[in-house]
Amino acid sequence: MQRLTLISHTLCPYVQRVAIALAEKSLDFERIDVDLSDKPEWFKTLSPLSKTPVLKVGEVAIFESAVILEYLEDTCDPRLHPADPLRRAEHRGWIEYASSLLNDIAAFYAANAEEAFAARASVLRAKFCRLEDLPRIGPYFERERFSLVDAVFASVFRYFDTFDKLGEFGILADMPVLAAWRKILALRPSVAAAVVPDYPDRLLRFLAAKPSVLGDRARAWLSRGNSRESAGVEGKFATA
Amino acid sequence: MQRLTLISHTLCPYVQRVAIALAEKSLDFERIDVDLSDKPEWFKTLSPLSKTPVLKVGEVAIFESAVILEYLEDTCDPRLHPADPLRRAEHRGWIEYASSLLNDIAAFYAANAEEAFAARASVLRAKFCRLEDLPRIGPYFERERFSLVDAVFASVFRYFDTFDKLGEFGILADMPVLAAWRKILALRPSVAAAVVPDYPDRLLRFLAAKPSVLGDRARAWLSRGNSRESAGVEGKFATA
Repeated sequence: MQRLTLISHTLCPYVQRVAIALAEKSLDFERIDVDLSDKPEWFKTLSPLSKTPVLKVGEVAIFESAVILEYLEDTCDPRLHPADPLRRAEHRGWIEYASSLLNDIAAFYAANAEEAFAARASVLRAKFCRLEDLPRIGPYFERERFSLVDAVFASVFRYFDTFDKLGEFGILADMPVLAAWRKILALRPSVAAAVVPDYPDRLLRFLAAKPSVLGDRARAWLSRGNSRESAGVEGKFATA
Repeated sequence: MQRLTLISHTLCPYVQRVAIALAEKSLDFERIDVDLSDKPEWFKTLSPLSKTPVLKVGEVAIFESAVILEYLEDTCDPRLHPADPLRRAEHRGWIEYASSLLNDIAAFYAANAEEAFAARASVLRAKFCRLEDLPRIGPYFERERFSLVDAVFASVFRYFDTFDKLGEFGILADMPVLAAWRKILALRPSVAAAVVPDYPDRLLRFLAAKPSVLGDRARAWLSRGNSRESAGVEGKFATA
């Protein structure tokens, strides 16, 4: 295979799903982080929608995370999608569902009034409830077999490791199937390695820069001296 | 193959792309339209994100248009994606680009002040310019071979047949490659058959119900006696 370069942002959940798939397939790649609050021209040229991730395969740039995952499936073992076409289609549908959850998470952390914040938490809870009720999950989405759906939900659940520090919002309460799934995903080496070691601090500082309810909580948490670093806050980022 | 049922909405562009692919693959299917302004319970049960289209394959429901297209590719000839994995990934990327254009089109027809309306037209023009500059397009996206990218852009261009009646917004002006592509797509039988015969009237009435700049234009157009029908206006719709 040609040289792989993952154009990335340290907090982007869509980058994580690709990094996880690359690790599961034991593929070497170079990772280049871009500043999405001040996008360089070369990045805008490369990425038609100005979003991360982009995977460069030699000199060809592939954009959109779901597309990159399919390309890796088409070309590299082990295959992480189910072999049955109908079941594979269901998996792809739940990957889209995860993308919709990521949008809901962004709306949750951006909500700037208590009422909207509570409403956004309810939307998230309802969507997770639907997932909790699916048959088959445990320990992974497709029983014993790690699949792309797992890679994708790993980056969804990772947000809650930070949200849980800031309060009890009831979003994932009393969902034993998802709790067990979340736990086993966090322990997976490919999942752990998909972000930088100081990711939780970076996410907290990103949240603390928001003029929002969760931003208030993050600022309060940081002001209690919980941050280990004093580097600048990450800018707003657009991701795919 | 098992019995296919396409859960649909008469104006949904994401349904059209699936209907076009089904026709290109000569697949028989039943089409069931739902009222997206008053979603029936069975639809909410079937579609996790409450969006059209859903394709039922026997009793299994597949959701998300891009996922349905991939399922049809995985199971039915003729294949409409390129055979080369890297080129296929590029095609999938441009399909996502088309989805982003559909969001921009929705923002364009919803803009309720002249300034926002002009800004939305500029965003659309810039995105189409990028497409105009791509190599290879002509007559189809991939030269002589009709592909899924064509199916997807056919439903993007179809909006402009109606917008063009309402004014000159400069969005697609002086783009000869796209003009020729749009023309050949409109003539394709699968594209023509993907919507109901009175689709243009339905779209006009849908637009006329919007409290927006384009809605004003549509109401003016209809009040000049240009509508052939007097049926009610379609409700708001959420599509995938």
